[in-house]
Amino acid sequence: MEVRNKYVTTKNHIDGAPNASDFCICEESLSLNLQTADHEGISNDVVVVQNLYVSIDPYQINRMKTHSCSHNIVPAASAVLPGQGIGGSGVGRVVDSGNPDFKAGDVVSGNLNWGEYTVVKGGRLLQKLDTSLGFPLSYYAGGVLGTSGLTAYAGFFKVCKPKKGEKVFVSAACGSVGILVGQYAKLFGCYVVGCAGSKEKVDLLKNKIGFDDAFNYKEETDLSSTLERYFPTGIDIYFDNVGGEMLEAAIQNMNNFGRVTICGQISEYTNTQKRAKLDMIRVLYKRIRIKGFICPDFMDIYQEFISTTTQYLQTSKIKVIEDISYGVDSIPEAFLHLFHGNNIGKKVVRIAQD
Amino acid sequence: MEVRNKYVTTKNHIDGAPNASDFCICEESLSLNLQTADHEGISNDVVVVQNLYVSIDPYQINRMKTHSCSHNIVPAASAVLPGQGIGGSGVGRVVDSGNPDFKAGDVVSGNLNWGEYTVVKGGRLLQKLDTSLGFPLSYYAGGVLGTSGLTAYAGFFKVCKPKKGEKVFVSAACGSVGILVGQYAKLFGCYVVGCAGSKEKVDLLKNKIGFDDAFNYKEETDLSSTLERYFPTGIDIYFDNVGGEMLEAAIQNMNNFGRVTICGQISEYTNTQKRAKLDMIRVLYKRIRIKGFICPDFMDIYQEFISTTTQYLQTSKIKVIEDISYGVDSIPEAFLHLFHGNNIGKKVVRIAQD
Repeated sequence: MEVRNKYVTTKNHIDGAPNASDFCICEESLSLNLQTADHEGISNDVVVVQNLYVSIDPYQINRMKTHSCSHNIVPAASAVLPGQGIGGSGVGRVVDSGNPDFKAGDVVSGNLNWGEYTVVKGGRLLQKLDTSLGFPLSYYAGGVLGTSGLTAYAGFFKVCKPKKGEKVFVSAACGSVGILVGQYAKLFGCYVVGCAGSKEKVDLLKNKIGFDDAFNYKEETDLSSTLERYFPTGIDIYFDNVGGEMLEAAIQNMNNFGRVTICGQISEYTNTQKRAKLDMIRVLYKRIRIKGFICPDFMDIYQEFISTTTQYLQTSKIKVIEDISYGVDSIPEAFLHLFHGNNIGKKVVRIAQD
Repeated sequence: MEVRNKYVTTKNHIDGAPNASDFCICEESLSLNLQTADHEGISNDVVVVQNLYVSIDPYQINRMKTHSCSHNIVPAASAVLPGQGIGGSGVGRVVDSGNPDFKAGDVVSGNLNWGEYTVVKGGRLLQKLDTSLGFPLSYYAGGVLGTSGLTAYAGFFKVCKPKKGEKVFVSAACGSVGILVGQYAKLFGCYVVGCAGSKEKVDLLKNKIGFDDAFNYKEETDLSSTLERYFPTGIDIYFDNVGGEMLEAAIQNMNNFGRVTICGQISEYTNTQKRAKLDMIRVLYKRIRIKGFICPDFMDIYQEFISTTTQYLQTSKIKVIEDISYGVDSIPEAFLHLFHGNNIGKKVVRIAQD
């Protein structure tokens, strides 16, 4: 069977703030049957997937730059070339498979394109999903049971190395990772304050998600004083998703032996002028540790993460907030909105019905 | 016996670059005999020490500021108040003692004043020196067998956590700590490049101290390109004594999982405008760890440090470079010179003959 496959590409490298005009919705003709297809002549390791959900994540902007230190780190974060498909976390259903590990009808998660179908070639990470637990499939598309979950879990437990009772600050706390970090930290026994960019988000964090406190950074004029107000005895752990001024302010409020975990730097992704000017004298005397990390380094704890998080979900101890758009056409706007903080929780695009 | 004790004080807090006019050479009348003295009425835990060598260290400037995050960290780094004596690492000889652990004639090291005598009250760190090894006493005055040595040893081995063969960059490499870090790193099996501020220092590092390479940062216009030239395959460990632009440039050249150890930030001590604007996106993707530390946290490895370093000294594997001035009158200038990079190696002032 031959279908039209609609997918998103970039028209050019994007080195500043992204605009709708940087993206293109393309169409191609695609054979869904490997017997009749010629997928670059390699059919014995090719899996054709109909995408169901694709994840929309801020880090993708770094892949779209002309130059970025991220380009050569891991294949999943390599450069996005103009005109080519854009891979990311996703969930789909196998339509046809030349790979004996997968058969038509299998539900899979892995690196899928921002589009209706993905032709997955050998070597690209794809795994069969156990759907028997009955969780929404979107959870696996870069969500609570996917990369955002693993990032939050590994970043908090393995990089921050928390102790019970410690004071934790989370920025972009209503983002896909931040909202989970706060919940892991609460479940572990920490005091957690988050910041976000609207009253709605702050209310959600305090009243529904269970953060001890939260504030709208857009209403604050001096972030260092703000943090001093929320942490009169100082911050032990700062889980940084934004960088820039918030990182500067957090450093000013860190306790001795405080840990700053660099997970995202969204305020700097589209504007290198926002680089944080850090008070390194304080880093020195307070013996602060600042550590960057990326989630692919933590695949060895994947099972621990999945089993812990599954239990929390089954007992409703973790709440999942998703922000879902529909259809390939909505992808560019969904992506652009991330940089204006328009999403609440995990941003996913549903491409087709489960 | 009563003597005139000449000592140094500050006239005021010093919040920018220090000047000679900020310091005062004072004199007081001091009884060297506890029986006749009234040292705040507490004679049973008082030790009167004639200072032989006092250490001159850049961190002292932070103690002299009106406000500094260093003021409440450890007693030895607490605020220096105008008009009061200035304590620091030193070596001296006990003149009289109300403390049974010390007797007249003992050679001791500890927190001694920038002056001719120190009246050491209970609780202030003082330890008897074993002089049988025959090392110059200056080595114990904040030197290779004192705080600079422990700082270099602990900072390199315990904070940087080196692996053999790794590429190490040391700034202020001709300073008291840097020159030792480079030698520990070479002895451990690392590749070591240092930077310093004059041709004389660079020649010393390359030709006498045994650094693999060294450069004069004052001759460079683009420090990031400079580091790329000296580390074509990247830096694994940056031992930072200076901060500012050099720290920015080092971050640009760190390898995956690189470690940046924040030991000193001399370029920022007298000018907060020099704060480093760090590329945190690189810290994230390269999974860089930045860690501040201070040497009092590592007293638990003091014996390990002393025994290792003593062996290295006895077998001439570590070379000691000292920059010695003479007399209390020379202390303010010796201190000011640190901030212009005029010292080569460990700066000490000899107060009296051994």
